[in-house]
Amino acid sequence: MQIAKVRGTVVSTQKDPSLRGSKLLLLQFVDEEGHLLPKYEVAADSVGAGIDEWVLVSCGSAARQIPGNEQRPIDAMVVGIIDTINVDNRLIYSKKDQYTRG
Amino acid sequence: MQIAKVRGTVVSTQKDPSLRGSKLLLLQFVDEEGHLLPKYEVAADSVGAGIDEWVLVSCGSAARQIPGNEQRPIDAMVVGIIDTINVDNRLIYSKKDQYTRG
Amino acid sequence: MQIAKVRGTVVSTQKDPSLRGSKLLLLQFVDEEGHLLPKYEVAADSVGAGIDEWVLVSCGSAARQIPGNEQRPIDAMVVGIIDTINVDNRLIYSKKDQYTRG
Amino acid sequence: MQIAKVRGTVVSTQKDPSLRGSKLLLLQFVDEEGHLLPKYEVAADSVGAGIDEWVLVSCGSAARQIPGNEQRPIDAMVVGIIDTINVDNRLIYSKKDQYTRG
Amino acid sequence: MQIAKVRGTVVSTQKDPSLRGSKLLLLQFVDEEGHLLPKYEVAADSVGAGIDEWVLVSCGSAARQIPGNEQRPIDAMVVGIIDTINVDNRLIYSKKDQYTRG
Repeated sequence: MQIAKVRGTVVSTQKDPSLRGSKLLLLQFVDEEGHLLPKYEVAADSVGAGIDEWVLVSCGSAARQIPGNEQRPIDAMVVGIIDTINVDNRLIYSKKDQYTRG
Repeated sequence: MQIAKVRGTVVSTQKDPSLRGSKLLLLQFVDEEGHLLPKYEVAADSVGAGIDEWVLVSCGSAARQIPGNEQRPIDAMVVGIIDTINVDNRLIYSKKDQYTRG
Repeated sequence: MQIAKVRGTVVSTQKDPSLRGSKLLLLQFVDEEGHLLPKYEVAADSVGAGIDEWVLVSCGSAARQIPGNEQRPIDAMVVGIIDTINVDNRLIYSKKDQYTRG
Repeated sequence: MQIAKVRGTVVSTQKDPSLRGSKLLLLQFVDEEGHLLPKYEVAADSVGAGIDEWVLVSCGSAARQIPGNEQRPIDAMVVGIIDTINVDNRLIYSKKDQYTRG
Repeated sequence: MQIAKVRGTVVSTQKDPSLRGSKLLLLQFVDEEGHLLPKYEVAADSVGAGIDEWVLVSCGSAARQIPGNEQRPIDAMVVGIIDTINVDNRLIYSKKDQYTRG
């Protein structure tokens, strides 16, 4: 899985019928030090993530393992909202701090 | 999924029989700020996208989840025509504006 | 799918038994402007492509959707020989012109 | 598979129910000379790897081949803890030496 | 498939039980001109490849198409030992010459 920040939304009315009702999030990837990368993905969302939250995104056939999505033409899915990231026993991200600061 | 702009078409008469009747679009990828990237994909189309439209493209096995495509040797499919893209609550693309300007 | 030019062949006698009889082509990828890219793929061929022809190559599990290849350990397959590529209503490749010039 | 070093952990409480109980490791990739690369992956762990250990990570649908993970939305899995890596008959990594030095 | 040179081996005793008995090779990728690339893969081996041989490696779900590997968590497999590579009717690699020179 990759770490990504929810940056926005993509709206499409003329789409494959199986995608009706899916909210599509625009995600920007984050590196192992917490910096934004010049790489994005549009993903379906199974956990109710909101703008600015950091999430885990699964790509490829993994995206269709969430019940109800087995036959949707999606290749990326938000599978978790991140609470904390620790690297070398150092906290590099905490959702709680993020919102206290904001 | 990735955001891409429909740039053209690819015609092939000598191809796998399962691909007969498929229109193949040449897509150029677009980044999260709306700029064209030096990266393209040839994709089948399930939504009737036209030249210059911005679309969502699914890659890998996701491309074969559209009914009738389960056993076609395709690894990319246009699954939606984009109406709007919002990043940080700012509208970075609107199909309506695109055509008003054009 | 990606656009590629057939550059050569790869011969292997000591290989997985399921690959016996498969001709393996060395393909070099081509970008959306028709320029050769520093990226290649060795692919099986289902359409009888020859040296210098431009082809469509499908990667990943799509390569095994051609009847008879479902259980071969291949991750790339030539699925069509390209006749023409149009970008912004401009012809950037035509097989006919290619061979007239050659 | 890729070689990676376990750098940390990612905690998510609001996640797909099938991921409950999975420990998620933050891995940084290592190249064929043993140097850390600017590339990471968040992976589930099937072998009990600890911080600073070098591991083998499988990506894509391979990650779901471990019993109990067939229908989890994961695209990366730690499948082994590395003891030694030999390149050109030269030992470039040994878990034993790593811990002796540390 | 990609062309790669067998550079070494990776040993792991604490690994997923399904991987017991698999020899894991460290491969370095080779480009279409025969030059080594800064890109590697650890792969299982179905053909008995040895150090310095040039091989074909299949990645992704293709790696599990070799009988006996259908449910192993592997994403790369050596599927053939290369005898010759021809580009533009020029021989750029021959296993026989390789060993004559060596």
